[in-house]
Amino acid sequence: MDIATRVHNHKWKIDPIVRSLIDTDFYKLLMCQSIFRNKPDTQVTFSLINRTKSIRLADLVDEGELREQLDHIRSLSLSRGESTWLRGNTFYGKRQMFTPEFMEWFEALRLPPYHLEKHDGQYELTFEGNWPEVMLWEIPALAVLMELRSRAVLHNMRRFELQVLYARAMTKVWEKVEQLRPIKGLRIADFGTRRRHSFLWQDWCVQAMGEGLGGAFAGTSNCLIAKNRDLEAIGTNAHELPMVYAALAETDEELARAPYDVLSDWHEEHEGNLRIILPDTYGTEGFLKNAPDWLANWTGIRIDSGDPAAGAETAISWWKERGEDPREKLVIFSDGLNVDKIIELHAQFSGRVNVSFGWGTLLTNDFRGLTPDDALAPFSLVCKAVAANGRPTVKLSDNPRKAMGPASEIERYKRVFGVGAQEEVEVEV
Amino acid sequence: MDIATRVHNHKWKIDPIVRSLIDTDFYKLLMCQSIFRNKPDTQVTFSLINRTKSIRLADLVDEGELREQLDHIRSLSLSRGESTWLRGNTFYGKRQMFTPEFMEWFEALRLPPYHLEKHDGQYELTFEGNWPEVMLWEIPALAVLMELRSRAVLHNMRRFELQVLYARAMTKVWEKVEQLRPIKGLRIADFGTRRRHSFLWQDWCVQAMGEGLGGAFAGTSNCLIAKNRDLEAIGTNAHELPMVYAALAETDEELARAPYDVLSDWHEEHEGNLRIILPDTYGTEGFLKNAPDWLANWTGIRIDSGDPAAGAETAISWWKERGEDPREKLVIFSDGLNVDKIIELHAQFSGRVNVSFGWGTLLTNDFRGLTPDDALAPFSLVCKAVAANGRPTVKLSDNPRKAMGPASEIERYKRVFGVGAQEEVEVEV
Repeated sequence: MDIATRVHNHKWKIDPIVRSLIDTDFYKLLMCQSIFRNKPDTQVTFSLINRTKSIRLADLVDEGELREQLDHIRSLSLSRGESTWLRGNTFYGKRQMFTPEFMEWFEALRLPPYHLEKHDGQYELTFEGNWPEVMLWEIPALAVLMELRSRAVLHNMRRFELQVLYARAMTKVWEKVEQLRPIKGLRIADFGTRRRHSFLWQDWCVQAMGEGLGGAFAGTSNCLIAKNRDLEAIGTNAHELPMVYAALAETDEELARAPYDVLSDWHEEHEGNLRIILPDTYGTEGFLKNAPDWLANWTGIRIDSGDPAAGAETAISWWKERGEDPREKLVIFSDGLNVDKIIELHAQFSGRVNVSFGWGTLLTNDFRGLTPDDALAPFSLVCKAVAANGRPTVKLSDNPRKAMGPASEIERYKRVFGVGAQEEVEVEV
Repeated sequence: MDIATRVHNHKWKIDPIVRSLIDTDFYKLLMCQSIFRNKPDTQVTFSLINRTKSIRLADLVDEGELREQLDHIRSLSLSRGESTWLRGNTFYGKRQMFTPEFMEWFEALRLPPYHLEKHDGQYELTFEGNWPEVMLWEIPALAVLMELRSRAVLHNMRRFELQVLYARAMTKVWEKVEQLRPIKGLRIADFGTRRRHSFLWQDWCVQAMGEGLGGAFAGTSNCLIAKNRDLEAIGTNAHELPMVYAALAETDEELARAPYDVLSDWHEEHEGNLRIILPDTYGTEGFLKNAPDWLANWTGIRIDSGDPAAGAETAISWWKERGEDPREKLVIFSDGLNVDKIIELHAQFSGRVNVSFGWGTLLTNDFRGLTPDDALAPFSLVCKAVAANGRPTVKLSDNPRKAMGPASEIERYKRVFGVGAQEEVEVEV
């Protein structure tokens, strides 16, 4: 390292974790544009939720450091190069994915204030404001907390101990690459931004997957890494759309229609591989049974909770019932994947449908077993829209452990969407 | 890296493997000084011997590259800093270990010419000349061939594949550190220069051992690394002294006395922890049985062939017979060590004698199992004094697989030194 760089590094007041507004998932930007067009004035509250109560984040992570990192994110704005990339790049085969109106708004954007408190060893971190603005806090907030936790654990480790820790973690990633390499027709992307061990580590994992898997590696959900490494930016949409649309519904009838309204808006904006159904927000079975026919024509489905094989079988049956050929459809698995599950699901569904994997936590944060007390093991941290225009949001999903919202509202949603008994699945990551 | 450094690196005609005349084992310098004083005009031939015939070095390593590296070594001379360190540093608790006469000679030294031919897939590399000069070729010649072989294997590997290879090798070293750390009273040094995977890798291993083992890590035999990392330089003497002294003997009586003449010369020059007997050149049992009494007073013994536990038991019995207390003696194990053997030998002898380990190949070159066809596994390459003043040298050792010399001379030496049947032990490294 040259002398000036070293001196410069020592002058940093902080070592920023998130250094760019596009260090976020691609689908957040797609959804942001859709919201900016369709529901720009909706008042939404996002809130951090640590599902792994045993990890007492407020004891591990210093509040001052957390505030510094969040304040740094509030100082960020889109750089000219980032703007040029978003405006000019081809995403999913399409030029000008982002409209000039949206880009002008995004170029002027600074993230809105946050609200931070400590309670019972956990941070209560919330973001309130216009939906298109506050929704952009989700990924950087998660990335900051994940990386500050990593830093807290690494803080007392010595130089060679650290080097060997990363050597071991690299070896784990590469063993996965070697297990995945023989799979014919594999298609897998990095979805690990929100739960990554650190930014540099995600960047390493993405590059290693690229070298090791070649064309089977489809790209990354992280826009900054996609831009820097010249990869495809991957992603479509998420639960926050039906959750907020549902919360805004005035009647049970409007509520029942809300998830389809989301996809109707999406249908007008996107085509091809961006038309991916996320069916599980209020139960996959009921969602598909009551879905309008035009939805069966969409390109594919993303299975993000419940038993993934069962979910894919449900989708295949549904396509057949609606007269669609499943072999022309895409099934994206993105929930709690590990190598064994990827191999198993690929074997079961390859040839019957087009299969794709969005691999998150256990790609970019698999430090299990590498430190005493497993202090770097990943944990289940999320940041969700919890209220819209003053009303609480609800998520049921295909796993009751992932359900969210006030109990009375959960009951109402279950009734409206006809959700019966569900199998509980441990939420690890 | 700064721009100028990068440009500079690309201007290199070669990437030198040995960049310093003190990138060698400390005992070579101690022996060199002794030879410089006692036998400076002896004409000696050193020769490279690859005991692992299955590794066809001349097919793997380009002759032009090998010549470039050897020519580079011939261009080296002692730098002022290196000279200052050798003149001023404390070695084994003693200042001015190297005399002004020796240092003046060393400062003016360039290594003499080499002779290189290819034969049947192997390199025939020999060095002929005055003993104090040609003996300094041994370690750099070995290091160059070891590292050129590593480079040949690594040449077609890609960036992340390489990174993971070193990650795995680091993990292996660290697992050894973790296994050795709990051993109370452990004392271990790096003896791995001659068989190292590469210079940078030896440097890494030495630093990792230092951090991981703390005070249990005694230092390194490599002078350059000892100087750069502020560690103890470790080593005493080797087989080349008795081998050449023996070859110079005119009669069987002189031959029988030669190994003791070596130690008699050494006795006048060194004291304390440098008075270490290397008894196995012509069989440990006979050597100790016929040894003069003053030798039992020496500080310790180095066990470098045969069954190490048997060798140590022989030494302990011998000390007792000669009225010495073994608990005040030092036993250094330095032959073919791995972690299990270190743990076993330490358990067996700790408390009965002072135990120390000189760990070579499996510290600085354990890439076993890390590449297809095990192409980076260490192999048994040596560079030995094969002739002195026109007469062949002979080595018997306590393992007939390590024996060297013409058959008729081996028979004569066995008769003179009373060596009977010996147990064969596989020579791996």
